[in-house]
Amino acid sequence: MTRTIVASATREIVIGFDQPFCVIGERINPTGRKKLAAEMMEGNFETVKRDALEQAACGATMLDVNAGVTAVNPNETEPALLVQTLQIVQNLVDLPLSIDSSVSAAIEAALKVAKGRPLVNSVTGEEEKLEAILPLVKKYNVPVVAISNDETGISMDPDVRFAVAKKIVQRCADYGIPAHDVVVDPLVMPIGALGDAGRQVFALLRRLREELKVNTTCGLSNISFGLPHRHGINAGFIPMVIGAGMTSAIMNPVRPQEMEAVRAANVLAGTDKDCMAWIKTYKDYKPGEQAAPTPVAVSAPGEVGSNNGGRRRGGREARMARG
Amino acid sequence: MTRTIVASATREIVIGFDQPFCVIGERINPTGRKKLAAEMMEGNFETVKRDALEQAACGATMLDVNAGVTAVNPNETEPALLVQTLQIVQNLVDLPLSIDSSVSAAIEAALKVAKGRPLVNSVTGEEEKLEAILPLVKKYNVPVVAISNDETGISMDPDVRFAVAKKIVQRCADYGIPAHDVVVDPLVMPIGALGDAGRQVFALLRRLREELKVNTTCGLSNISFGLPHRHGINAGFIPMVIGAGMTSAIMNPVRPQEMEAVRAANVLAGTDKDCMAWIKTYKDYKPGEQAAPTPVAVSAPGEVGSNNGGRRRGGREARMARG
Repeated sequence: MTRTIVASATREIVIGFDQPFCVIGERINPTGRKKLAAEMMEGNFETVKRDALEQAACGATMLDVNAGVTAVNPNETEPALLVQTLQIVQNLVDLPLSIDSSVSAAIEAALKVAKGRPLVNSVTGEEEKLEAILPLVKKYNVPVVAISNDETGISMDPDVRFAVAKKIVQRCADYGIPAHDVVVDPLVMPIGALGDAGRQVFALLRRLREELKVNTTCGLSNISFGLPHRHGINAGFIPMVIGAGMTSAIMNPVRPQEMEAVRAANVLAGTDKDCMAWIKTYKDYKPGEQAAPTPVAVSAPGEVGSNNGGRRRGGREARMARG
Repeated sequence: MTRTIVASATREIVIGFDQPFCVIGERINPTGRKKLAAEMMEGNFETVKRDALEQAACGATMLDVNAGVTAVNPNETEPALLVQTLQIVQNLVDLPLSIDSSVSAAIEAALKVAKGRPLVNSVTGEEEKLEAILPLVKKYNVPVVAISNDETGISMDPDVRFAVAKKIVQRCADYGIPAHDVVVDPLVMPIGALGDAGRQVFALLRRLREELKVNTTCGLSNISFGLPHRHGINAGFIPMVIGAGMTSAIMNPVRPQEMEAVRAANVLAGTDKDCMAWIKTYKDYKPGEQAAPTPVAVSAPGEVGSNNGGRRRGGREARMARG
């Protein structure tokens, strides 16, 4: 059974076919968030802290941390900013983290200070990337997200994307990185632009699970890009990818409709034992209500458990951690 | 390609792997609805009419019609009541109907007066049922729902349920009824009682599609029986069964959360061409709103098209009809 283990300082999470879906909170990312980028460059991490706490309170399994602010030379500036962001987040919430950067030096700097066992996000099939990232993944003994594109770009042919994923898994093996530490992203296209995008991904997920036996992830909301009522499309997509074998996604856990879809799919896939997480979350649900917890205010480190819904952190999240 | 054709007097619908999911409205059914049963026995069909119009307005593809009121001798009373109910419904809405009865004489009486090509709901693997229903299905050249249980009851072993379905399909063939006119119900168990119920159904659906090449249906809301916030479980289940190959379900189309899940899954399965139905339904959607049409008042026959949201009937439903 494929098990990818990630961990914070004190909490271990298993990503796997028999585990509740792993929700990787996407919010701590200045890409496309000008205000957040400006704050982070000024050394203001209040939004980062709020996003960390809010995502944890809403049920994220782990958090993605990206510090890719636009810079003249990101190789010089991003390592320090990513380290600072990562340290703030890991001191504030007790969730495993995903170190998200396109700058290899930033990934290495973050790996040096990260507690537990973070996920590296990401490597691609590009030769230069493989040679830069895989030695780090091996050295620090961490799992890695493998994105199914290479020097030729993103293929519209799912067979080519599968072949790229297979190549990365093989290259990982050459470095001594086992397949269970490779989390493949088959790449999700917008369904509004490519009507076959859903069926492509479902077929790819089955092959990745059955042939390569790897865990999988994706940038979930890509699927609904350009369409109205994106949450509705996302919430329909989640049960379908879980049914097809996807085991994690980088997504926004603050959206109640999407998180409800994750919880329902966990029940239906048989990974929410005795429906306990569902019953706990929705036992007092009234139609028209949103069942997500009230987003929490920023609090100082150490205050998390005392003021922001310890019930939920001690409930669903703890269960997910134990699997 | 498996195509099950059903029709009203003037509208033909195809149930098939490449078609939008067929929503069979379940509301016209006095089972468990004491007030409705009492009304129908008194000859009051106002609720039946309202349920017919409401389900049509909400986007049902076809309507199930059941007149199974509790009676001392249903063999004597149900045929006339089912005929009366069916005639009222088919004169009011232009959707294909499903003739739903456990009384063979009632099914035959309804088949005699039904316009178009109704679906017979249902036969089981019980010898007595097969011998009573299949000659009618052959004589009237209509499709039939085949429920995967027999004299021994409902097996908890999905392989047994598959074997029962296969037996019914073979018995149909003996009567000259082609597999594309058999819509198999693999039987959905409550997930709250049987944690494996989801995975059982997903696996059965794939086998039914790949090995028997038949269309499929189920009583959808069974899955959430006994759990809180059932609409959330149902709405997660719909994309999963559609992803696994289910092509229709007997369900409540008046529930916006479930219908949104159907529409999203149609987009993602590639059966909502260019996302047109989704865009039309949700283009002006605001978060927190319910996108379902306002339920309509009962109107006299012939008035349907003029006063109850011709946009929707001319939109999604017409598209579904054309496939």
